[in-house]
Amino acid sequence: VRDVRVCLLGFGHVARAWCQLTSDRSAELADRHGLELRITAVGTARHGSLVSAAGVTPAELLAMVSGGDHSFPEPVRPGADLIAGSEADVLVEATPLEAGGHAAIAHLEAAFASGMDVVTVNKGPIAWAYRQVRDAADRAGRRLRFEGVTMDGCPVYNLVERCLPGAAVLGFHGVLNATTNYVLDEMTDGLDLTAAVAAAQQAGFAEADPGDDLDGSDAAAKVAALANVLMGADITPDQVPRDSIRHLSRDRVAAARKDGKRLRVACSARRDPTGALAVGVALVEVGPDHPYYAVTASSSVLVLQTDLMGDIEIVERDGLLPQTAYAIYADLLTLYGPR
Amino acid sequence: VRDVRVCLLGFGHVARAWCQLTSDRSAELADRHGLELRITAVGTARHGSLVSAAGVTPAELLAMVSGGDHSFPEPVRPGADLIAGSEADVLVEATPLEAGGHAAIAHLEAAFASGMDVVTVNKGPIAWAYRQVRDAADRAGRRLRFEGVTMDGCPVYNLVERCLPGAAVLGFHGVLNATTNYVLDEMTDGLDLTAAVAAAQQAGFAEADPGDDLDGSDAAAKVAALANVLMGADITPDQVPRDSIRHLSRDRVAAARKDGKRLRVACSARRDPTGALAVGVALVEVGPDHPYYAVTASSSVLVLQTDLMGDIEIVERDGLLPQTAYAIYADLLTLYGPR
Repeated sequence: VRDVRVCLLGFGHVARAWCQLTSDRSAELADRHGLELRITAVGTARHGSLVSAAGVTPAELLAMVSGGDHSFPEPVRPGADLIAGSEADVLVEATPLEAGGHAAIAHLEAAFASGMDVVTVNKGPIAWAYRQVRDAADRAGRRLRFEGVTMDGCPVYNLVERCLPGAAVLGFHGVLNATTNYVLDEMTDGLDLTAAVAAAQQAGFAEADPGDDLDGSDAAAKVAALANVLMGADITPDQVPRDSIRHLSRDRVAAARKDGKRLRVACSARRDPTGALAVGVALVEVGPDHPYYAVTASSSVLVLQTDLMGDIEIVERDGLLPQTAYAIYADLLTLYGPR
Repeated sequence: VRDVRVCLLGFGHVARAWCQLTSDRSAELADRHGLELRITAVGTARHGSLVSAAGVTPAELLAMVSGGDHSFPEPVRPGADLIAGSEADVLVEATPLEAGGHAAIAHLEAAFASGMDVVTVNKGPIAWAYRQVRDAADRAGRRLRFEGVTMDGCPVYNLVERCLPGAAVLGFHGVLNATTNYVLDEMTDGLDLTAAVAAAQQAGFAEADPGDDLDGSDAAAKVAALANVLMGADITPDQVPRDSIRHLSRDRVAAARKDGKRLRVACSARRDPTGALAVGVALVEVGPDHPYYAVTASSSVLVLQTDLMGDIEIVERDGLLPQTAYAIYADLLTLYGPR
């Protein structure tokens, strides 16, 4: 059994769900995949930190914060310090997304400089600085996995890299933001925007501040990440024009419904015949024959337009916390599992 | 540049389309993937054979049969003889499917016994004898690829093997036969079965004898192949109960349409709580919220039910000859490409 030492930055819902999944599957990880994960450092922004040379198991980590204040014993420390002191094999970057992605980008670069591989579910580095972090990984001879930055653990980046050899992605389009999709479905059922957002928050599909979802910022970051990785683009989310649904009226949604249609926030990228890249996040109306129509609530869909395989669609039907946790779990297996 | 020597059995539409694709992409294959394909033997059932120690390029092969009778210079020879005499690295099995799959199974076993890898787009061996051929490959230390036996080159087997590490497939369902799907769509537009089949034949979506499609045999073979590979089953197509659409009336289709629904031939497999496998090919009615509804004409869809990622759907929007040719192209790149 191979010990894999993990430095974990961020300990929110996703990191906890990953610890729970890894804990639940620890016997299978050891017996079938030959892996034992030991966490040698944990960093949070407000709940302290942990450094453990011997490492703790994910189950032990969860037990440590199951008490009253959910805090780790040591004070909050900068991510770079924790990375440098962690003596880990891999950084799992699970901090929240921030515009520009600066902190997460610095974490990735520090990890590569320390000889570590990286698994990130924070889309900042891929959306804002993919070439920079990829080049940093290459220079260090280390590996970077990031399946979870789009559609949770549903294969997108790995699908193209590992299952479509020799084919080129000419463009893509899809519904990639679960919050707005849930809100639009609730509005189709008759709610106004405020009530629909409240329903999404209650169901766990929207943050306390859903601004980044409603105004298209989250979707724009996903467009940039996909275009950078799958199409060799070098753009940032700032360069992605977007529609906001902040002022969408109930009447507009009702009118679409009356025509047998549904509203969706569509992400897209395409090269025109001159090679120029057109990207966007736009509110669209679709009928029952469109691939977006049946993509309801927390589902998401990506249509890849390829040269040799035509259009391929992949749909994540259940985009919930366990599926994001699986992204980290699967990326670690890809890095350290057998074969 | 690495020479890969190919023994090609079958020279129908699929094999020709693969030769054309490989010929069109020969510069990219050499420059980007470091491969040059040379065909050292070709076998057909009625149009002669070819054995060439030096090998011919796919372009040269196409030129050889571009004349009047589309035949190769040498007489028809048994597949096993051609395999043994081909001194090839890999067998590309592209003969037509026959019930039981006996000839193709024998071809695969002969290839492994001769130290060759195998790429098959003939689903017979995977549907009728997957364990047998997989074990033959393992014993010989050779590799077997078969992405093209279901949904053409759309990733299904590779998706599970390479992109869902640590996850288990609990079941699946989908629309996997383009001929019946096309026929059902034509009937929805008002044709009776005979006219719809004629339309499918004219559009190139149905064989001269569409019996295996209409009576569910082709779909049953796909269910067996998927269950055997993805769920560790050991069944043959004979064990898959199936609905035939041979006697489907225009009225039945019209009634569904009146309810806002469409008919689809659904393939499925699922283990019940005792572990017993339930499989089937059934005519179903679906509404606009169902993933099958927008899967029209030559499209196909597979929904994978997994333990860790919930339901994942993959849709092949364009299931045409170039996409089947790509299956062979991609499998060869998987076997012999860099990395």
